[in-house]
Amino acid sequence: MEFSPIGIIKSEFVETASPDDMKAEKSRIIVDEEYAEGLDKIEENKYLKIVFHLHRASGYDLIGPRRVGGVRGVFASRSPRRPNPIGVTLVKLLSREENELIVTGLDAVDETPLLDIKPYAADIDDPAHKFVD
Amino acid sequence: MEFSPIGIIKSEFVETASPDDMKAEKSRIIVDEEYAEGLDKIEENKYLKIVFHLHRASGYDLIGPRRVGGVRGVFASRSPRRPNPIGVTLVKLLSREENELIVTGLDAVDETPLLDIKPYAADIDDPAHKFVD
Repeated sequence: MEFSPIGIIKSEFVETASPDDMKAEKSRIIVDEEYAEGLDKIEENKYLKIVFHLHRASGYDLIGPRRVGGVRGVFASRSPRRPNPIGVTLVKLLSREENELIVTGLDAVDETPLLDIKPYAADIDDPAHKFVD
Repeated sequence: MEFSPIGIIKSEFVETASPDDMKAEKSRIIVDEEYAEGLDKIEENKYLKIVFHLHRASGYDLIGPRRVGGVRGVFASRSPRRPNPIGVTLVKLLSREENELIVTGLDAVDETPLLDIKPYAADIDDPAHKFVD
């Protein structure tokens, strides 16, 4: 299946840094003009989930040592090196101007192709809300 | 950019139903044998994020009325009809047997192509943990 970028992510980070360093930084999400209308009312959301192509990740190990949790499978890790290198990151929306969003918390390097933006919703994204036992 | 399925989702639902109906149902996630090793230690996670191709969604409206929230842009909605029809859904992992996962909370119809599985982690997926002001 084929997907096409709907925009691009601008970051101070041209190389992947530690997630903690990256998450403190502000990033700019620039949505292509042809998709800009799709941002209507997005500023009503404090948090967004950004879906992007991990375009700098090369290859993957199905099983191996991870930054967190020791040796484990790729699907039990958040490594960017995955069979389908798709990143999904929660960000805080600081401001919007036309087709540009300023966010914090985005661990994507400069020039990352943007695939989708979804509003965060506790009732479907937070286990404590979604799975009331 | 091109992505290839790593498995398939089996559900009782052959057509999209209300999210509330679908989320109560158990689904089976079958990972292709060639990727099965990537599931190592996945059972240590109670919650997973499932990334899949919304293969039954056709077209999209950049702006229009939504099931939730009235008229708004597609990126301010969780509609399955999106420029890049990629679904990201939080599920609860009930059990694993070899390359099969049994989950609840998955709003994907039968035969949905699976793109990725990521472990849910509160420190990066929960706003209250990630964004400590």
